[in-house]
Amino acid sequence: MSSTPPRPGRIRPAPDATHAPVSPSRRGFLARGSAAVAAGGMAALASAPARADDALPPSVAPWSRALGAPVLASPYGVPSKFEANVRRRESPGLTRTPQSSVSFTPLQNLFGIITPSGLHFERHHAGMPEIDPHRHRLMIHGMVREPRIYTMDDIVRFPSVSRIHFIECGANTGMEWANVAVPTVQYSHGMLGCSEWTGVPLATLLAEAGVDPKAKFVLAEGADGAALTRSIPMAMALEDVLVCYGQNGEMLRPEQGYPLRLLVPGVQGVSSVKWLRRLKVGDTPWNSREEALHYIDLMPGGIHRQYTWIQEAKSVITAPSGGQVILDKGYHEITGFAWSGRGTIRRVDVSTDGGKNWRTAKLQTPVLRKALTRFRIDWNWDGGPALLQSRAIDDTGFVQPTIRQLREVRGTRSIYHNNAIQTWRVDPSGEVSNVQVV
Amino acid sequence: MSSTPPRPGRIRPAPDATHAPVSPSRRGFLARGSAAVAAGGMAALASAPARADDALPPSVAPWSRALGAPVLASPYGVPSKFEANVRRRESPGLTRTPQSSVSFTPLQNLFGIITPSGLHFERHHAGMPEIDPHRHRLMIHGMVREPRIYTMDDIVRFPSVSRIHFIECGANTGMEWANVAVPTVQYSHGMLGCSEWTGVPLATLLAEAGVDPKAKFVLAEGADGAALTRSIPMAMALEDVLVCYGQNGEMLRPEQGYPLRLLVPGVQGVSSVKWLRRLKVGDTPWNSREEALHYIDLMPGGIHRQYTWIQEAKSVITAPSGGQVILDKGYHEITGFAWSGRGTIRRVDVSTDGGKNWRTAKLQTPVLRKALTRFRIDWNWDGGPALLQSRAIDDTGFVQPTIRQLREVRGTRSIYHNNAIQTWRVDPSGEVSNVQVV
Repeated sequence: MSSTPPRPGRIRPAPDATHAPVSPSRRGFLARGSAAVAAGGMAALASAPARADDALPPSVAPWSRALGAPVLASPYGVPSKFEANVRRRESPGLTRTPQSSVSFTPLQNLFGIITPSGLHFERHHAGMPEIDPHRHRLMIHGMVREPRIYTMDDIVRFPSVSRIHFIECGANTGMEWANVAVPTVQYSHGMLGCSEWTGVPLATLLAEAGVDPKAKFVLAEGADGAALTRSIPMAMALEDVLVCYGQNGEMLRPEQGYPLRLLVPGVQGVSSVKWLRRLKVGDTPWNSREEALHYIDLMPGGIHRQYTWIQEAKSVITAPSGGQVILDKGYHEITGFAWSGRGTIRRVDVSTDGGKNWRTAKLQTPVLRKALTRFRIDWNWDGGPALLQSRAIDDTGFVQPTIRQLREVRGTRSIYHNNAIQTWRVDPSGEVSNVQVV
Repeated sequence: MSSTPPRPGRIRPAPDATHAPVSPSRRGFLARGSAAVAAGGMAALASAPARADDALPPSVAPWSRALGAPVLASPYGVPSKFEANVRRRESPGLTRTPQSSVSFTPLQNLFGIITPSGLHFERHHAGMPEIDPHRHRLMIHGMVREPRIYTMDDIVRFPSVSRIHFIECGANTGMEWANVAVPTVQYSHGMLGCSEWTGVPLATLLAEAGVDPKAKFVLAEGADGAALTRSIPMAMALEDVLVCYGQNGEMLRPEQGYPLRLLVPGVQGVSSVKWLRRLKVGDTPWNSREEALHYIDLMPGGIHRQYTWIQEAKSVITAPSGGQVILDKGYHEITGFAWSGRGTIRRVDVSTDGGKNWRTAKLQTPVLRKALTRFRIDWNWDGGPALLQSRAIDDTGFVQPTIRQLREVRGTRSIYHNNAIQTWRVDPSGEVSNVQVV
């Protein structure tokens, strides 16, 4: 193994759109240090010691010479104060009110596949209600033999299951349809999260109520001020939909539907109705406000597609990504997420030259159905211009399309269901920006 | 499917040992409601509607008639105020100072296999330091060709991996050796958590430094005031040990070693040295303070075992569990965790009669190596006395022992490595308590 130190290859994080002070994050440590170089696919690393004036000697670091904080300094723990810049963010001007708005997950700061619940994106239509779980009820009615009203106590006593699934808003990456290249991956792809969800299979509750064999749809309604409603096809309802109360090991967070939400795996997030209070069984979709006026795909020629549920195979590189600056040549790990609402990610390819050449990335195991999949690949930046792309392939054989392929079929007036290949341009200056390669 | 409502089967949570007000939690919803009954292994559920006076009609619930809170009400989200009682707890009187102490995970409140980072148990030897990641360094020296000092910036630039693993303190369930039946599963088994950890394989860093072929051990040292040190066998260090900066998708929490810790999968927690500042390579174990005076097993006859690392196969039922009260007969889901430091859980059996009869529980998939495994099994409580037990079997064929089997080999003076089968007694009154079936 060579021990010749090549030039270091640091990355500076994107400036915070809300102008909060930049604090350390995964790609944000700017201290001088060692370097590493990739030799082929397998990284052969060689590093130089940090300079002695970079650090206090360990023996005299102040935290090594004193008692620290007691246990239960936080009975419910919180991140380090040095991570205060890792947070959800609202895109200024995107919505008219903060109650009918979106906050975005900082994908560029995430590791692995679990999204911390405190960083999971939010989408509210009438703000986040504060629901007393003792007073919350779930009604099941319509084309059923025996209508039901359940307390939370009832719900949690049914046999439960836990599964890791992604949720992606149907409008994620929506600005890119019309070539509005939003600056960072937090804003371009941040209506995305992945959690371990716990609840009762909807199939169990429907069996309990005795569904009419002629029923074809279930309407889910939220208890928030928007009373948001969505129609779920019965086949989907019986397959893998959950009535959830748990997220990442604990009760749902308020902004995620506390105390109860629907979880429709693989389907645009709006169908996973939060603050779930009602399930109505029927034989046609309801064509409700959020189904007729929003969450539809405007197609070429002025017609629109309605009830396009599935989030097709998609991927995005989260580091290096838009707004970051690569400070030096040398080794970098390119990493990101891939996911498919149809099933399981089979392969992710990565290009550093805008799609001319592709290499196959490593996938973090276990690779789970309808869950985020973490991919990683070694890259040695030579200092020249580069175009970073990732391309997901799922177990149906579906290949993530280019934006050109997508526009050929669906035009440019859509908001929803943009699963195009994302391109990050690396400038010789090291600046990384969002560009469209058409 | 029968629609005759049997008697409800509610459970009241354990009174909080710190006398905080009991708030709703998974087993804590006390509203009147429906019931369900298990018919054989597969639950056949039948429920009665809640009484109309239990709830406001959904249409007039106050949260359905108003705008809720805006997005970013919490830029970093927090649990509902109704979950304030779900928290880590310190066992009063267990330790002399809160800086050299333990807080316990509320296992009875958890779902799935991921432990929320905010609820993960803590064990500090000199309190929790607050480390500036810009100033933190990791030194690697000893029997290596090229000693190194790394900044955090260096560490996060190495090729990374993420894996889901449990951490269990070697002293978990320690009080049970001498028949001190602590009242709740939070205190009996709560020095346990499971997270998705992200970091650099220690093998990568050791290869980078160039380890002397004669080296046999690595000493890991923390940057806290205790300067805690542990010896790690080289074979283990090269197998699956990680130098971690990420936990459950974000940077480590301060109490979990921010910004850097070791993660030694399957091994007692003390070896996963937090606030990691130094790795020394050598040819013998160091016999340091925490290896010679603590974390040793006192055996019959006065001798002791040293360097007993592995956490053997173990399981515990978390619901129903000690301190809870089953309010009614009928259907209950028995659930809990199983884990093995040797590998993967192959099977979990559950008994409701103190080990006379066993049924095989369902395991939540994916079942992961050296990770918590969630098991679940249906139970129909007939109102009589019951003794609930679970028994884990791992893929080495190891069967979790009874406390009698364990004492026959190891006596009663140990503190560490108690992996005996746990028994919860259900009294006809419904009270659940911790008992030993010898």
